[in-house]
Amino acid sequence: MLRNLDIGLSQANRQLVAMAGLVEEAIIAATHAWRQRSTARIQEVYAIEQRVNQAHIEVDSECVKLLALQQPMATDLRQIISLIKINTDLERMVDLAVNIAQNTEYFLKSPPVISTEDLSDMSDEVRVMVREALDAFVQKDERLARSVLLRDDKVDQYKRKIFDDVLAAMRRDPACIEQGLNVILIAKNLERVGDHATNVGEDVIYMSSGKDVRHSGGASPGVTRR
Amino acid sequence: MLRNLDIGLSQANRQLVAMAGLVEEAIIAATHAWRQRSTARIQEVYAIEQRVNQAHIEVDSECVKLLALQQPMATDLRQIISLIKINTDLERMVDLAVNIAQNTEYFLKSPPVISTEDLSDMSDEVRVMVREALDAFVQKDERLARSVLLRDDKVDQYKRKIFDDVLAAMRRDPACIEQGLNVILIAKNLERVGDHATNVGEDVIYMSSGKDVRHSGGASPGVTRR
Repeated sequence: MLRNLDIGLSQANRQLVAMAGLVEEAIIAATHAWRQRSTARIQEVYAIEQRVNQAHIEVDSECVKLLALQQPMATDLRQIISLIKINTDLERMVDLAVNIAQNTEYFLKSPPVISTEDLSDMSDEVRVMVREALDAFVQKDERLARSVLLRDDKVDQYKRKIFDDVLAAMRRDPACIEQGLNVILIAKNLERVGDHATNVGEDVIYMSSGKDVRHSGGASPGVTRR
Repeated sequence: MLRNLDIGLSQANRQLVAMAGLVEEAIIAATHAWRQRSTARIQEVYAIEQRVNQAHIEVDSECVKLLALQQPMATDLRQIISLIKINTDLERMVDLAVNIAQNTEYFLKSPPVISTEDLSDMSDEVRVMVREALDAFVQKDERLARSVLLRDDKVDQYKRKIFDDVLAAMRRDPACIEQGLNVILIAKNLERVGDHATNVGEDVIYMSSGKDVRHSGGASPGVTRR
């Protein structure tokens, strides 16, 4: 027989998976917005954010209810704590997608003068991180979660290259300054999306193994040059 | 007679208050670093971060222990959930102080050419937000927590003004580009410190009243232009 706790946990899990799907959509829409120079995609991001905010409150309240009424122990308790943390990370990710959409509004104000090839590659890598982190969570796959953690370095490398190249372009041609700044801010926001995917990966590892792997690799994920 | 739960809660609270003190120190050191052009202050930020990371893990593990062993209800449960969330926000704040210290390393590479008066005013305002948020938490003062939420608008105004002025300076004189970019990134990081102070304020309101005030004021705190 299923315990009430199991029913509640599946319910919270389902809610979070649905929310994760929305967050991924928002990140894809935000990326397409500047790649395809599409204002419709920008609006899509804003619309998805509203739904994610609602889901964020619902998941939190479901988790608190489970803690209050079911008094979970050990693995169940770890899982609920992880759900609460992943919920926070997902909500921040959608905020970052909104930031990227807003950067893109500025970015689209002038015809393209700055190359965004590296930014495209960086966003592909970040999207893979997000996908892997969410898959790791859904499948409770610790190995996949660890793969997310490894990708973070590559994302940071892209970001550093974009910073250097865009700065050089801005110096060469002051007409690039505003657009260059928006490219840098998009890269910065993408990097932070990657940081949150890393957090989710760490939470999945904690959820499945009880091991706290945060702060174990030198700098924490939120901390990168610039 | 004190319950074990009360003893545990005071212990977790004390740990978090000590950690909050360190985070505030880190933010002050990061701000002084660029104001006083001091590399010693930069190193101080990095040293404090290590201690905060350690505290972060300890508070989390204390809270999970309380949930597992004491099966808290109602107000106690809300308080533990809030401690877990505030703990996350404090850890992110110290990451941002480290980011500011890193921006400052670049910033100090050239003699000052960009005015940082508004940035100083902005950092004063953010420090007040952080102080009020931590005081609200220590004193469980819902009114003070609400005052933090109101200050966030002013911080965003400063940031927008800094963006506009620095962009204009960069356009006028390309020699300002690199330094201008670092001023913008410091402002962006300060704004995010303010966002986390807002989160702490919201958690304090939830802790004392059970009201979830997130996502109630239109855009969420993490979401601001650019």
